[in-house]
Amino acid sequence: MLKKKTFLCVGLDSDIKKIPQHLLSEEDPLFSFNKAIIDATADLCIAYKPNMAFYETEGWKGVRSLERTVNYIRSNHPEMFIIADAKRGDIGNTSKMYARSFFEHMDFDAVTVAPYMGSDSVTPFMGYEGKWVILLALTSNKGSADFQNIVSQKGEPLYQTVLRTSASEWGGTPDNMMYVVGATRADMLADVRKIIPHNFLLVPGIGAQGGSLEEVCKYGMNDQCGLIVNSSRAIIYADNSTDFAYAAHVEASRVRDQMSQYLV
Amino acid sequence: MLKKKTFLCVGLDSDIKKIPQHLLSEEDPLFSFNKAIIDATADLCIAYKPNMAFYETEGWKGVRSLERTVNYIRSNHPEMFIIADAKRGDIGNTSKMYARSFFEHMDFDAVTVAPYMGSDSVTPFMGYEGKWVILLALTSNKGSADFQNIVSQKGEPLYQTVLRTSASEWGGTPDNMMYVVGATRADMLADVRKIIPHNFLLVPGIGAQGGSLEEVCKYGMNDQCGLIVNSSRAIIYADNSTDFAYAAHVEASRVRDQMSQYLV
Repeated sequence: MLKKKTFLCVGLDSDIKKIPQHLLSEEDPLFSFNKAIIDATADLCIAYKPNMAFYETEGWKGVRSLERTVNYIRSNHPEMFIIADAKRGDIGNTSKMYARSFFEHMDFDAVTVAPYMGSDSVTPFMGYEGKWVILLALTSNKGSADFQNIVSQKGEPLYQTVLRTSASEWGGTPDNMMYVVGATRADMLADVRKIIPHNFLLVPGIGAQGGSLEEVCKYGMNDQCGLIVNSSRAIIYADNSTDFAYAAHVEASRVRDQMSQYLV
Repeated sequence: MLKKKTFLCVGLDSDIKKIPQHLLSEEDPLFSFNKAIIDATADLCIAYKPNMAFYETEGWKGVRSLERTVNYIRSNHPEMFIIADAKRGDIGNTSKMYARSFFEHMDFDAVTVAPYMGSDSVTPFMGYEGKWVILLALTSNKGSADFQNIVSQKGEPLYQTVLRTSASEWGGTPDNMMYVVGATRADMLADVRKIIPHNFLLVPGIGAQGGSLEEVCKYGMNDQCGLIVNSSRAIIYADNSTDFAYAAHVEASRVRDQMSQYLV
């Protein structure tokens, strides 16, 4: 982060219906699109985050495109942090299988996990040295208020109970756990930091979802930076012509330049 | 259900490490295992429920085995209800992609969805005529108590808020929504039925997870039956020899015979 002056994560939400049409004649259009985006942005970001839904929707061929993408990043940019945005979570026996999928079958560094099913749905992802769970705490979507902000009889909103419980009861540390905290709620980042001052936060919602980088840095940064800020659509769909990769580079550069001010 | 005298769902949690070893020489061992289990149990159950984790962990080849399995069920038993046990849930834009995956790319009838991210993470699955969301309410695992039982300032446990909100605010009806309610909590089924008397419940946790069928029927049944009761490991791993399919048939028959008493 300090060397590259960036804490940008590029979200590879690569939708076969939105990528430039000239790529559809390629043997593996999703992979070709990702490869071009990666080549154009790798010096400007520290992480890539493919969202599983966009690959699964193409069936096993989409999953193969994803596997090729992860292998391409790992081979060409071994230092890159690769996040599976999967929002998984199941009974312990089954979460173990998901962990095996993302951390053994594929070489992801981290996977996003949903907390609703509690401890045994999350801890199977925590037993991998040098890998991280990124637990959903406060998401950036409209529906996040439905349950995440419900205040308990003890006076604590659910998203804070998720932070506190995972950190104090499940063995979550900055070395095995990060949290998703939506950028559209920058004011709530201060409350988050009171509970988990040292963990990294994955912040979606910059760009298309409308969060402010300044607010996020003001309330969310710690002395290790502590932030991975994601932008997906604003970068990967910056342009829809044969110049799409260059346009992605320009947009990622713009975000990186903003970020560099906060890494001094 | 009434014709077959059963409300059994067979969970296809097919783990390449647990299936009979003689199948590993087949071209597609997971599919061969599933096909044999399906042939042996189709007259005894009304639904199959593959859990995604067990296929994804084998990468794109596992996903191909899953697609073959769904196609096999649909072709040979067109009346069968097929549930994707996926526990998905993401921002609206992304949940739409998951819905497309399970309901358009594959021909599932229902998909399990996690509620943590709220309305827009769930409603994209509800727009398909003749398809169902099966929303996690009260799960059967140990960790379920961590958050699902938290009582709000209004005096309502979270799992009840999930039931009430989805039914009264998101347009959930018996025609587009069912709920996961764990069998290890049969006493809580009475509370569930006060909020959603008419929806079907998917009940995991009979068998290996230890729930009681009698309790489930006593508290959970309604005048449409209202229950889909799942058993996975107790049936599909009833035996590990070349006789595994027959053993699965015997175990499924045993469960079906129990169930038939409650469908008079």
